[in-house]
Amino acid sequence: MRSPWVNRKSLIRNPRAHSEPCVTANRYVGSGRSRFVTELKRFVRFPSVSAQPKHVRDLVRCANWLANHLQRIGLNRIDIVPTLRHPIVYAESKQLSDRPTVLIYGHYDVQPPDPIKEWISPPFKPKVRDKNLYGRGACDDKGQMFTHIKAIEAYLQTQGVLPVNVKCLFEGEEEIGSPNLSGFLKRNRERLAADIVVLSDMPIVAPDRPAITYAMRGALSVELEVKGPQRDLHSGIFGGAVHNPLQVLCELVAALHDSKGRIAIPGFYDRVRSWSKAERDYMTRVGPLNTTLLRSAGTRRGWGEIGYTAYERTTIRPALTINGILGGYQGEGAKAVIPSRAIVKLNFRLVPNQSPREIEALFRLYIARITPPTTRVKVRTLVSAQPALINREHPAIRAAAVAYRRGFGSYPVFLRSGGTIPVVNMLQQALGVPIVLMGFGLPDDRMHSPNEKFHLPNFFNGIKTSIWFLTEIAACLRSRRRLSSITDNLDTIGARWI
Amino acid sequence: MRSPWVNRKSLIRNPRAHSEPCVTANRYVGSGRSRFVTELKRFVRFPSVSAQPKHVRDLVRCANWLANHLQRIGLNRIDIVPTLRHPIVYAESKQLSDRPTVLIYGHYDVQPPDPIKEWISPPFKPKVRDKNLYGRGACDDKGQMFTHIKAIEAYLQTQGVLPVNVKCLFEGEEEIGSPNLSGFLKRNRERLAADIVVLSDMPIVAPDRPAITYAMRGALSVELEVKGPQRDLHSGIFGGAVHNPLQVLCELVAALHDSKGRIAIPGFYDRVRSWSKAERDYMTRVGPLNTTLLRSAGTRRGWGEIGYTAYERTTIRPALTINGILGGYQGEGAKAVIPSRAIVKLNFRLVPNQSPREIEALFRLYIARITPPTTRVKVRTLVSAQPALINREHPAIRAAAVAYRRGFGSYPVFLRSGGTIPVVNMLQQALGVPIVLMGFGLPDDRMHSPNEKFHLPNFFNGIKTSIWFLTEIAACLRSRRRLSSITDNLDTIGARWI
Repeated sequence: MRSPWVNRKSLIRNPRAHSEPCVTANRYVGSGRSRFVTELKRFVRFPSVSAQPKHVRDLVRCANWLANHLQRIGLNRIDIVPTLRHPIVYAESKQLSDRPTVLIYGHYDVQPPDPIKEWISPPFKPKVRDKNLYGRGACDDKGQMFTHIKAIEAYLQTQGVLPVNVKCLFEGEEEIGSPNLSGFLKRNRERLAADIVVLSDMPIVAPDRPAITYAMRGALSVELEVKGPQRDLHSGIFGGAVHNPLQVLCELVAALHDSKGRIAIPGFYDRVRSWSKAERDYMTRVGPLNTTLLRSAGTRRGWGEIGYTAYERTTIRPALTINGILGGYQGEGAKAVIPSRAIVKLNFRLVPNQSPREIEALFRLYIARITPPTTRVKVRTLVSAQPALINREHPAIRAAAVAYRRGFGSYPVFLRSGGTIPVVNMLQQALGVPIVLMGFGLPDDRMHSPNEKFHLPNFFNGIKTSIWFLTEIAACLRSRRRLSSITDNLDTIGARWI
Repeated sequence: MRSPWVNRKSLIRNPRAHSEPCVTANRYVGSGRSRFVTELKRFVRFPSVSAQPKHVRDLVRCANWLANHLQRIGLNRIDIVPTLRHPIVYAESKQLSDRPTVLIYGHYDVQPPDPIKEWISPPFKPKVRDKNLYGRGACDDKGQMFTHIKAIEAYLQTQGVLPVNVKCLFEGEEEIGSPNLSGFLKRNRERLAADIVVLSDMPIVAPDRPAITYAMRGALSVELEVKGPQRDLHSGIFGGAVHNPLQVLCELVAALHDSKGRIAIPGFYDRVRSWSKAERDYMTRVGPLNTTLLRSAGTRRGWGEIGYTAYERTTIRPALTINGILGGYQGEGAKAVIPSRAIVKLNFRLVPNQSPREIEALFRLYIARITPPTTRVKVRTLVSAQPALINREHPAIRAAAVAYRRGFGSYPVFLRSGGTIPVVNMLQQALGVPIVLMGFGLPDDRMHSPNEKFHLPNFFNGIKTSIWFLTEIAACLRSRRRLSSITDNLDTIGARWI
C-alpha cells in the first residue's frame, strides 16, 4: 500500500535509532497475549454503566481495579478523583523534562446493555468466540484504551522507561456526555499539560485497513415530556374526549421530519457547512459504499436526505434519531389506558458549524409552537457536545499513520465519524493541543448494541501500533518542545484546514 | 326524585307481599358490614392480573378462594372450570321449577396495576381510607360482583331460600377480552339457561344518583409492530442513513388522526349510526356536563370531534387511543440507539353499527398503504368486541330501577358508557336473554388507574339494591315463565328501540 504522503521518509528521520526498544517491546507483547486477554476480560466484567444509578458502586469498583492495574504496570502518581457522579482515574509515568508529553484519554464506563435478552453471552460475562472478545465495553472503550495500557506496560517492563512522558486520563462519564470532565480539565490544566492527546474509541475500516478519524459529529440529546390528564385514565370511559399524551407525542415526533427525510425544525440547516467537490470525492474514494454501510447496519434499504451517500448522511449531514419512548402500558397483552404522560428521548447529531446550544433553542421554540393547547410539554437536555474537526496534515497525525503501518501492515485512510465523543472538542478547547483519534475497533463491533465485541487481532496489532506511535511521536517531537505552538489552527471548526 | 316512568306503580303489583323477607335480609346486611369489608379485602388481596403470565397461579388461587366462599354462603354445584388460560368459577342456588332464573355475571380478574409507584397504598394490600376501599379490583369488578354475593348470602342466611333461582358465572379473563368465555357459553347453553342476566361493572353518577347503563362501546385492541434493521444500532454511526422504526411508528400513529381530531382511516365512520335529536337531548339532560366529565378525568381542556359534547364523544362517537409504546431505551439518561423495532398498542372504541372485524380490516389496509418501504409492519389483534345496546323499556330494567330506589333512595338515570364489556354482547348473543347493567361504582373510582377504590356506602347500598332486585324480578317474572320470549328485540344493534 502506498503512503498517503509523498515525503513520509522525512518524518522518520533516523528509523534505526529508535526502533530497537520498539522491537523488544513488541516481542514482550507477542509472549503476553493470553494474559492480556484475561486481564481485559476482568476489566469488562465490571458493569460500569454510567447512565444507571444502580451501577454507581460498580463504577467505583471498576475505577479502583483500573487504578491498581495502572500502578502494577509501573505508572506513578495514580489518583482516583471523585466527581459529582463517577470518578476519574489519573496516572502518570515519571515525567522527564527532555521528553514530549502524550496524554492518553479513555473511558471505563459503558453503555447500558439493553436489550439484554438479545445477547448471546451475558454482557458482563466476557467470552472469547472466533478471535473476538464479546461483552459490553469490550470495544467501547475498555478494549481500545487497554491497548495503550498494554503498550505502556510493554515499554516499561522491557526498557524501564518510556520514550515520551505519558499521562493517562480515564473517565467514567463518557457515555453520559462527560458532564464533569470539563470542570476537571479546567481545574487541572497545568497537571494535564501535554504536547498531544491520543484517544482510541472508534472503528477502523477492516482488520487490514486501519483508519484515522478526523471529524466527528456533535450531539444534542434531549428528553421531551408531554403531560396530559393528572392521572392515567380508562381509555373506554374517556377515549375521544381527552387528548392522549402519547398521541400528542407521536404527532410532535412526526412533525420533526418532513416527507423528504429532512429535519423540519425551522432554521435547523442554516449553519450546516457545505463541502467542496474535492473533499466529497475523497470521502467517496476512501469511505464505505452505501451497500457496505447498510450491510453493517443489518438492513438493505437506505433512507435519508436526498443527494447524499449513506456515508455523507452519517458524517457531513446532521441527523435526528428517536432513541426511546416511555409511556402507557408496556406489558403483555392489552391495557385500556390513556397515560397521563409520555416521554421521548431524542438525539441530534450535529455537523460543523452547528452549535448544540443554538439547535436546542430552535428545537424548544419549534416544540412550543406546535404543541397543542390540550397538553403541556417539558424539554430536558441530557447531552450537549460540539462537532469536532482535526487537521489531518498535523505531524502527530503523520506519526500515527506510520505507527499503523508498523502495527497493521498498512497506512490508514482518513475517515469522518458520525458518532460523537464530546471530550474531543472538550480536550481541544481546554488543553489547546492536537488530538489524534486512533481507532482499533471494527465497524461490526456493535458498539452500543447487544453482542458488542472486540476483534482480538486488532487488540494485539493495536498494542504494537501504540508502541510505535509513542516511539514515532518522540522522534517527531524531539526538535520542538511544544508542538501545539505550531498548530494554532487546530481547533478547526470553521477553520480552513483542507 | 320523580320516577322515570309515569305508571311505575303497576310494576310493583303488591308491594307488601314480597317485602317482608327483603326487610329481614336488609337487616342482616346492616349488622354484617364490617365482616363484608374484611371479606372483600381478602378477595382484593389476590393479584389476579389476567394479562400477565406471571400471575397465572394467582388467578387459580383467587378462583379457589371465590369458589370456597360461594359454597360457604350456601350455593350449590360449585365448579371451577379450567379454560385455555384462566378458570371460570360457576355456582348455582337450588333450582326450583316455579321460579325465574337470574344469571349473575362477574369477573375476578383485574387490570395490571402499573404504574405501581403512583399508588398511595399498594394495589394488592387493600386499605380503607375515608369510607373507600383502595386496591386494584376493589371496584372493577371484585367489589361490584361481591355486592351480589353478599345479597345472596343475606337472603339464604335469613330466609333459607332465594326468591329466584340464581346462577353465578364469574370469569377470570374479562380484562383480556374474555377469549374463552364464548366457547364456554356455547358448550353450556342449557346449564346456563336463565330469564335474565345481571352484571355490575360500571359507575353510577353519584352516591345519591344511581344509574343503569343501556349502551356500551365495542372495542378493538391491536398491537402494531414496526421492524427496521436487524439489530439495535448506534445512532451516531448510523443516524441519518437508516430509517428509525420508532420514528416510522410515530409517523404512522400521527397519521391515524386528522387535524380535527377525527380518525383518519378511510371508511372508518361509514357505518357509525347517527342519533335523533330527542335521544341526544335526553343524553344532555341526564349525562355529565363537559366540565364534570373533564374534571373527573383530571384535566381542564377537552379534545375531540367537533360538534359533540364530551359525553357524546365518549359514548355515541368512536375513539382511538394510544395505550402504550415500547421501543428503544427506556432507562434514565440518554442512550444513543436506533432500535431495531418498536411496538404501539392501540385501542379503538366502536359504536353501533361498527363491527370490530371490519374496522380491523380497514386499519390493516390503511397501515399497509402508509408504511414506508424502508420498514416492515405487523398487526396483531388483542381484543375484539361488538358494541352493545340494551332496551331500556324492558320490565327487567324497570325492576332494577325500583330496586335502586329502595337501595339508594333515588330512581336511576339511564346512561351510555364509553367502556366495553365484551361479555355483554357475548351473553346477549349466546343466551338470547335480557341483560341488566346495574352499576355500583363511581366515576372517580379509578377503574384501570392507580388508586382504584370502591365507595363503601355504595357497597352497602348495592347489597340492598341487589336484594330488592332479586325480589322485584321474582315478582315481575312470576306471571311469565320466560321473559325473554317477549323481548325478541333485545339484541338491539340496529333495532328500533328508542
